[in-house]
Amino acid sequence: MRTLTRQLQSHIGDQVTICGWLHKKRLLGGLTFIVIRDRGGVAQALIKDKNEVEKLRGLQVGTVLEITGVVASDDRAPGGVEIHEVSLKIDVPVEMEPPIEIDKPLSHESENLDTLFEYRPVGLRSPREQAVFKVQSEVGEALRQHFRRNDFTEIRTPKLLAAATEGGAEVFKMDYFGKEATLAQSPQFYKQMMVGIFERVFEIAPVYRAEPSATTRHMTEYISVDGEMGFITIEDLKTFLSGMLNAVADDVWQYCDGQLNEWGATKPVLPKQIPSISMAEIHQKYSDATGENSVGEKDLRPEEERWICEYAAKNLNSEAVFVTDWPASEMKFYHKAQAGHPEFADRIDLLFRGVEIATGSMRENRHDVLVRQLVDMAGGDPEAPGFKYFLMAMQAGMPPHGGFGMGLERLVQKLIGLNNVKEASLFPRDINRLAP
Amino acid sequence: MRTLTRQLQSHIGDQVTICGWLHKKRLLGGLTFIVIRDRGGVAQALIKDKNEVEKLRGLQVGTVLEITGVVASDDRAPGGVEIHEVSLKIDVPVEMEPPIEIDKPLSHESENLDTLFEYRPVGLRSPREQAVFKVQSEVGEALRQHFRRNDFTEIRTPKLLAAATEGGAEVFKMDYFGKEATLAQSPQFYKQMMVGIFERVFEIAPVYRAEPSATTRHMTEYISVDGEMGFITIEDLKTFLSGMLNAVADDVWQYCDGQLNEWGATKPVLPKQIPSISMAEIHQKYSDATGENSVGEKDLRPEEERWICEYAAKNLNSEAVFVTDWPASEMKFYHKAQAGHPEFADRIDLLFRGVEIATGSMRENRHDVLVRQLVDMAGGDPEAPGFKYFLMAMQAGMPPHGGFGMGLERLVQKLIGLNNVKEASLFPRDINRLAP
Repeated sequence: MRTLTRQLQSHIGDQVTICGWLHKKRLLGGLTFIVIRDRGGVAQALIKDKNEVEKLRGLQVGTVLEITGVVASDDRAPGGVEIHEVSLKIDVPVEMEPPIEIDKPLSHESENLDTLFEYRPVGLRSPREQAVFKVQSEVGEALRQHFRRNDFTEIRTPKLLAAATEGGAEVFKMDYFGKEATLAQSPQFYKQMMVGIFERVFEIAPVYRAEPSATTRHMTEYISVDGEMGFITIEDLKTFLSGMLNAVADDVWQYCDGQLNEWGATKPVLPKQIPSISMAEIHQKYSDATGENSVGEKDLRPEEERWICEYAAKNLNSEAVFVTDWPASEMKFYHKAQAGHPEFADRIDLLFRGVEIATGSMRENRHDVLVRQLVDMAGGDPEAPGFKYFLMAMQAGMPPHGGFGMGLERLVQKLIGLNNVKEASLFPRDINRLAP
Repeated sequence: MRTLTRQLQSHIGDQVTICGWLHKKRLLGGLTFIVIRDRGGVAQALIKDKNEVEKLRGLQVGTVLEITGVVASDDRAPGGVEIHEVSLKIDVPVEMEPPIEIDKPLSHESENLDTLFEYRPVGLRSPREQAVFKVQSEVGEALRQHFRRNDFTEIRTPKLLAAATEGGAEVFKMDYFGKEATLAQSPQFYKQMMVGIFERVFEIAPVYRAEPSATTRHMTEYISVDGEMGFITIEDLKTFLSGMLNAVADDVWQYCDGQLNEWGATKPVLPKQIPSISMAEIHQKYSDATGENSVGEKDLRPEEERWICEYAAKNLNSEAVFVTDWPASEMKFYHKAQAGHPEFADRIDLLFRGVEIATGSMRENRHDVLVRQLVDMAGGDPEAPGFKYFLMAMQAGMPPHGGFGMGLERLVQKLIGLNNVKEASLFPRDINRLAP
């Protein structure tokens, strides 16, 4: 019977068998200590018997082994227990030194990221690296459960498309049995079509952007968290997103407390309802405070995004903020203009700890207006396969609806406090990196 | 305040407002009945007031509207309630007849499938079509919860790869900033690498096969359910899969009973432990029973897969069966041969209701043996980016491990009893279809 390292506390005085990887080996005052790692964590064993010590000769970190011994309480050992009277069984000996040292924190300095990613298959064995992806796993679950509690249906939409839909520049193209196919940049039109079926839908799946530069904020493949709801207003969307970010923070700090501590992450301060600030007001406040002048600009500067988040944390007791009242020039053809204020899109961006993590809007649901916007604003052909079916759904009757897309890795990055979004991806992809 | 149709039973005698789509309109003995659809289902309303009836003139199914009225108990109406004293508010009028009639069951005959898929954005509004994807959503949740209960960590691995890994023929290739990239056919090597990190991992995500023929069993894009576990034997894998299929059936028949009834689906008969039959035994039994001769063949014929499932249902009280003892010729380079029986792969296929829904195996975890198998069996180059990192993980120490891949749409197809796997995909992809 195998015992997991995390169960040892309840086995003090018992003989147990632990299976795992040799994580560390050291000599201290003539004594041999080893640390063994399994899916539950790590545990320390003290090996006194010379024959047992001998079995470890020449073996490196990563060796797969079984430890049988008696669990003793010891405050000095990690987890407060130590295994004594040890006998070892070597299952898979490893004689080569690992290409990256996993028993100490790996460097995340920007100049070392390439090394970090190159050796991911081994480097991720470091408990501190694991912590990032335990958090990612739990964030995904928290998001899904929030969607499900709110009566959303999970959908799975295709990533192979006949033609580019939104924007043509950053689209990957491929050969599809002699025809051209593209990879989805977002499930935008599919999730909107699905509002006509389930009213409330969500999808958490990869999307693709042929982003031609390596930045700290972009990847060519990332996980998009998409939600779309019918019979709502933009206020309902804000309420939903506020509840979602709170639910994620609550769940993750409940279930991944240890992992978050590894990174010194602090639970975000978030009111029940995240505050809204119009773009014009942000420009004004930023210009007044810094002496820079962004008044009248159509978008936010990256430094304004950071500044307004700091402002909100200080003055509004919120580490997140909705940016409202986007100028019509920043409106996509499927967005809705504000009722009575066509100079503004009915759009919100959600900023969190200095960066945009989600963008949402109300969608134009009137078929005739949508066709006009497609032609006038995007120069699109309503008969092209990328638009035809989307418009078919609209023509068949669609209620007022809205939704958002959120980058999973950015959310994880900002919850933990990582510098680069790629640090929150197991095997990140950018213009320079397609492996591992 | 909006009331959902599924809440009406608890509002008898109350005035309520329902928002949704006009789903049906009919005249019966001089009375006008309408059916309204929302995310909770459908409800019937009786409209007597001539002014209200007049508002519906010329309006088609799909019209978005609000109904305010009083809920009355009526056994003849769907759901046992009817809305009376109705006033209507038309939100989005629809004047065009929908391209496909959604108030009666859509044809799934093979000659009509193309029409079914062409009009998906509207046809899915049929409650019977919706049922398939409510089941799919619930199957996904049941799978994830089974993984989580068993201490698996959810992972997200890239679908953009530097080079083809398993098999070269059915790989989609694309341009990646002037280099060649391919789309993942499975997360095989990634999930194995991740065993070295979390021991037990799962992923539910799209994969891609450039399948050059349109069959009832294949799509070019489908959702792969992948699990991988360390420190196990093939018996543990069978136990896990048996538990998983049972958990899915239990959860889906608990939460989607109505949807399954729409299709006349019957809950599968499954013992706690799904029985195993060796390939040789299947060949022998099949040959004895049918007079055909498949003895000595290296694989199962499709008709044998169907036959052995019927046999197991009749004689073993199980609608699923594991096929064991695959000949070494059917072994992939990363599979492990059976200990002491190198003529057999340590592989299992899971057949369910006549078709293979999952394939699993123990993996070769010894670095030196794996390198030899890669070179000898697959002619692979250990230094190629598709193999290099995988081998790096193995060299760093990997315990005995195994796992499986399962097609989500095939599982849903077989649970419901659909003829073609594409019917279980919202927007299916094959050689002929890239849209909608």
